[in-house]
Amino acid sequence: MPKILITTIPFSDKNRLPLELLEQANINYLINPLNKKLTEDELSEIVADFDVIIAGTEPITKKVMDAATNLKMISRVGIGLDSVDLLEAEKRGVIVSYTPDAPAPAVAELTLGLMITLLRSVQLSNMEMHNGKWHRFFGRRLSEITVGIIGVGRIGKGVIEHLKSFGSISILLNDTGSYKQDWHNIEKDCNIEWVDKDTIYQKADIVTIHTPLTAQTKNMVKKEQLMKMKEDAIIINTARGGIINEDDLYEVMQAGHLSGAAIDVFDFEPYAGKLREIERCILTSHMGSMSIDCRARMEIEATEEAVRFLTNQPLKGVAPEEEYAVQRDGL
Amino acid sequence: MPKILITTIPFSDKNRLPLELLEQANINYLINPLNKKLTEDELSEIVADFDVIIAGTEPITKKVMDAATNLKMISRVGIGLDSVDLLEAEKRGVIVSYTPDAPAPAVAELTLGLMITLLRSVQLSNMEMHNGKWHRFFGRRLSEITVGIIGVGRIGKGVIEHLKSFGSISILLNDTGSYKQDWHNIEKDCNIEWVDKDTIYQKADIVTIHTPLTAQTKNMVKKEQLMKMKEDAIIINTARGGIINEDDLYEVMQAGHLSGAAIDVFDFEPYAGKLREIERCILTSHMGSMSIDCRARMEIEATEEAVRFLTNQPLKGVAPEEEYAVQRDGL
Repeated sequence: MPKILITTIPFSDKNRLPLELLEQANINYLINPLNKKLTEDELSEIVADFDVIIAGTEPITKKVMDAATNLKMISRVGIGLDSVDLLEAEKRGVIVSYTPDAPAPAVAELTLGLMITLLRSVQLSNMEMHNGKWHRFFGRRLSEITVGIIGVGRIGKGVIEHLKSFGSISILLNDTGSYKQDWHNIEKDCNIEWVDKDTIYQKADIVTIHTPLTAQTKNMVKKEQLMKMKEDAIIINTARGGIINEDDLYEVMQAGHLSGAAIDVFDFEPYAGKLREIERCILTSHMGSMSIDCRARMEIEATEEAVRFLTNQPLKGVAPEEEYAVQRDGL
Repeated sequence: MPKILITTIPFSDKNRLPLELLEQANINYLINPLNKKLTEDELSEIVADFDVIIAGTEPITKKVMDAATNLKMISRVGIGLDSVDLLEAEKRGVIVSYTPDAPAPAVAELTLGLMITLLRSVQLSNMEMHNGKWHRFFGRRLSEITVGIIGVGRIGKGVIEHLKSFGSISILLNDTGSYKQDWHNIEKDCNIEWVDKDTIYQKADIVTIHTPLTAQTKNMVKKEQLMKMKEDAIIINTARGGIINEDDLYEVMQAGHLSGAAIDVFDFEPYAGKLREIERCILTSHMGSMSIDCRARMEIEATEEAVRFLTNQPLKGVAPEEEYAVQRDGL
């Protein structure tokens, strides 16, 4: 009888359907017994004997796969495949699927909310008010500023759609990926310019990151890039930890640079690092995709794919060759 | 030489133009020496001898006007005229002008940001993360819920425009004011239903208030209305303090009702009341119109109007008869 290890948590929490799908198919499962994002070592200790992992963002490395002697398939709940050693999986014939469309609307919407929250100092005023201090912060409106988007895939495009309702907003875009082919569709819609990354750092009042984590984007935003940004600029990362160097962000913000930041993703999660000292840095706990509907869709799609695999039906979410190419080229 | 009392603060803080306009016209002015929202008594003590008030939201009552023996004009920086006793002003021949269009975009944008912040528990996660706790909150997306808007004037309409970018969102509207005539224009655009207020309280996942403060809207949302709302609903007030009863809101939230609230305006400002005890109630310091551009536009328009009055030029922002009718009918 096949066995599935569900590492991502929470799972089937607001919607029972994913577990019901497994039960209907008579598939045994174990939900992450540590109830936290697993480290490589923790996962290696648990993973033996399982045929399939319904995976979060924990590292599924060569070491893990060495321990997972029965592993035949990884079904990622969500988009980025940076956590999975795809080349190692390929060598062993382990199939990798994912759900790239499901999280995008929730991440784009959260990103827009973070932009307004930061532009208007909502979290600072809220903190001061709860502490009994009344100070009317000045803010800026989206239509008065320039937004720079690095990474124009499903999520970056969603952010652009929302921004369009805020009037004649100026948007700078940068993407080196496969979405270039759609550039013309976006361009004709609004006040958009395609530029290099340095132009974004220098000209944007908000820089928001929507790239995958790859060898090219790891540490893409270091001290050098942060210091190119305007003194009162804002940076947002709802993509992956590691794209913005956390130590460098801490250092420049501690020194007074940047008016705000919102960081939802971290090198090591659960996060407990130094950015907690910086009040104008909003910290959230990897919640980009955590809307009830998107999370359910991700879990259901990943579970259905695992069931399809174990019942010999055609798969629908197999990771495309581009994802392997990204890792072959560097990470 | 004419003298202007500027009560609203901050004033000319990010943009020198309002003060320059007064200086160019050789008009003497005094900026609110207490640097806070004035009470009726405080204003009464200061106001004697001034010809014009460039006013914030402090009470300009019969008592104040009795003390303001030279007063000929009130130029309100912003919209709502609830703070000005228009009938008393009319009796004395004191002209009242305002800037109703200037604040709307900033208030609508902040309201949208507060919706997303509350739906995704950003402020709670941020607080927990800064305290070293990692908990992934579930949230909801705007397209999955029903938004109820009470008051569909300049600001309510702006909120609708922003909501449209979030997909097939369900919107319930209620307005008893003069905007009824535009109903058909809004209706054909999106998934909108006009309903009575009780239906909004019962069906909406977010209720947002965009009415003026009048005899009809004072204490419009009391315990009875709050308890009609869904247990996990959200309420937002960026309009005027007093429309939602603060004590009742405190009581029902303290008892566990409602998943969140955002209150930007208060009965008495600066606010120092009990809602500060409720973490899931976002409190901001009357910042709806506090974007640099909208605030500048409000101050410039109100100052230009005061200069026009003192230099015998035709006025552009005189409060219309409807505003007087509202007060005649009750407040």
